Amino acid sequence: MTHEIAVIPGDGIGQEVTPAAVEVLEALDIDFSFTESEAGDAVEEATGEALPDETYELAATADATLFGAAGETAADVIIPLREAVGSFVNIRPAKAYPGIDAVRPETDLVFLRENTEGVYSGHEDRLTEDVATLTRVTTQSASEQLAEFACEYAGPESEHDGFTIAHKANVMRETDGLFRDTVAEVAAENGIDTDEVLIDAFATKVCLDPTQFDVIVCPNLAGDVLSDLAAGLVGGLGLLPSANIGPDRGLFEPVHGTAPDIAGEGIANPAATIMSAAMLLEYLDYDEEAAAVHAAVEETLADGPRTPDLGGDSSTADVTAAVIERL
Amino acid sequence: MTHEIAVIPGDGIGQEVTPAAVEVLEALDIDFSFTESEAGDAVEEATGEALPDETYELAATADATLFGAAGETAADVIIPLREAVGSFVNIRPAKAYPGIDAVRPETDLVFLRENTEGVYSGHEDRLTEDVATLTRVTTQSASEQLAEFACEYAGPESEHDGFTIAHKANVMRETDGLFRDTVAEVAAENGIDTDEVLIDAFATKVCLDPTQFDVIVCPNLAGDVLSDLAAGLVGGLGLLPSANIGPDRGLFEPVHGTAPDIAGEGIANPAATIMSAAMLLEYLDYDEEAAAVHAAVEETLADGPRTPDLGGDSSTADVTAAVIERL
Ligand SMILES: CC(C)[C@H](C(=O)O)[C@@H](O)C(=O)O
Ligand SMILES: CC(C)[C@H](C(=O)O)[C@@H](O)C(=O)O
Repeated sequence: MTHEIAVIPGDGIGQEVTPAAVEVLEALDIDFSFTESEAGDAVEEATGEALPDETYELAATADATLFGAAGETAADVIIPLREAVGSFVNIRPAKAYPGIDAVRPETDLVFLRENTEGVYSGHEDRLTEDVATLTRVTTQSASEQLAEFACEYAGPESEHDGFTIAHKANVMRETDGLFRDTVAEVAAENGIDTDEVLIDAFATKVCLDPTQFDVIVCPNLAGDVLSDLAAGLVGGLGLLPSANIGPDRGLFEPVHGTAPDIAGEGIANPAATIMSAAMLLEYLDYDEEAAAVHAAVEETLADGPRTPDLGGDSSTADVTAAVIERL
Repeated sequence: MTHEIAVIPGDGIGQEVTPAAVEVLEALDIDFSFTESEAGDAVEEATGEALPDETYELAATADATLFGAAGETAADVIIPLREAVGSFVNIRPAKAYPGIDAVRPETDLVFLRENTEGVYSGHEDRLTEDVATLTRVTTQSASEQLAEFACEYAGPESEHDGFTIAHKANVMRETDGLFRDTVAEVAAENGIDTDEVLIDAFATKVCLDPTQFDVIVCPNLAGDVLSDLAAGLVGGLGLLPSANIGPDRGLFEPVHGTAPDIAGEGIANPAATIMSAAMLLEYLDYDEEAAAVHAAVEETLADGPRTPDLGGDSSTADVTAAVIERL
């Protein structure tokens, strides 16, 4: 069976790290068919559209999409793309690697971020010159779908032991209250252990001791900020992959941006995008291959060539070749 | 002139640290008249009301209020109390002290958190069994008032050099857009330097290098989470004071909670509440006395007696006496 993979490199170093990850996928003995399409600042400049219809359609029909990064137009690209693949959860692991500078080297967390609603599906209004509003939406159904995924992800068959629900239900009583109660109920029905934490308290606690957390399930914007906080603890966005999971397709992207300061120089670190490709493999049930790619990246991080962001002087191509060699 | 000070110890260690801060204020040569009132879990248990009307009235009429902490009822106490004093900004300094364990010992930040709106003034609805909404409100007028305060706080007469506006206007375009544009405009009119950062990017960056920021102006919930993140970087909530400032009165409170595990033992660290009292002094224009209290606390932290949270075995009373001795 051929797997149709959409490839959307986007802007800046997206143009360098995305082909690197494709190279790694091509080195495996799997039948992939790659189709590339455009999105981001450059195509907006040329055509007026940051996300051309054909790119949206491609993501909406491919088995999986590999996305690089977009610049100023990031929100106009990534939010509709997540919707195109029907993604209800954004998986964001934040892990420190041996030998890589980290504020908290013991960090090893996974955020399961609700990926459809909250302020992201919100309707905004400028009511008067003085007043603007945004209606934040929380549904029981989206919370349930996320919770069911989380129970699978962090359940007895996994390496995890339940999860923590992060919310601000002491202030957002109806909306985050519905989120918390629904997720906790689904977990209880599935016999999964959960505890809960307020998002502000989480921000303090995770700095003091990240090992007190493991898998964190949270609303959309909370997940955005708290996973970026965890990125800070492990040394920055450079090594963080992510997966936007839907029932029938997925979108895989590094958490980092376009890095305009080094774009075009061939020295961007491809690790986060290659690890995103490993998450794509996992999604398509190539668990062995996924594990092999993860291991190859970790080995390369430990003793292989390094790009300048990690203190080395190797190129994107060198690192990619080193990963492929270790497969 | 006598200054009327409302004293609301609340629950848990609030009952220990609030009297300690009052003792420090009493040691100064200023004419204060203190009136104590109740709020929190205990009074709710006794009367059904976490914030009795007379406590609200006291805060709404006193020149300044010193608040300790509340337990489960925190939101029911602190949100109305902020409103009672007409507070439009919550000042939250997050500073690491020499000799105190910190993840990022070079942290020295001040958050100016919008204190009236966003999700906090939000109206919530359970529209259907499935759907709950929260309407987040942003006004130009509240943003302006905050910005004018920030310009004064971080302007040329201060030790600061402008401020950073933190927001998520790439997603919340109307609401955070209005906030960002209004604050930037007021700053420009006042000749104050500003830059801006997305709240998720801030979370990463502040971990990697907190010295790239100084004063951060942000919406209400963002300020809640990001200041707690900074608390994590300086070693926890234990040493963070805060000031809720209104045009005519203010409310001063430690950022920490009720610490039920050590409540009643007489070993709570009073430093955050004493520093909140110093912010109260500043608010009433006793700048010299405020500086003296701050200095006395810093000296005590550096070489004075320490409570168990800082690795010592001294009591709240010992630390309070040491601060007073250094005045
Ligand atoms: C670009 C932006 C809309 C996006 C988000 O807020 O989700 C980004 O911050 C992310 O986390 O992928
Ligand atoms: C108790 C809660 C309502 C409050 C807030 O969210 O403002 C607290 O977290 C704080 O920061 O003072």
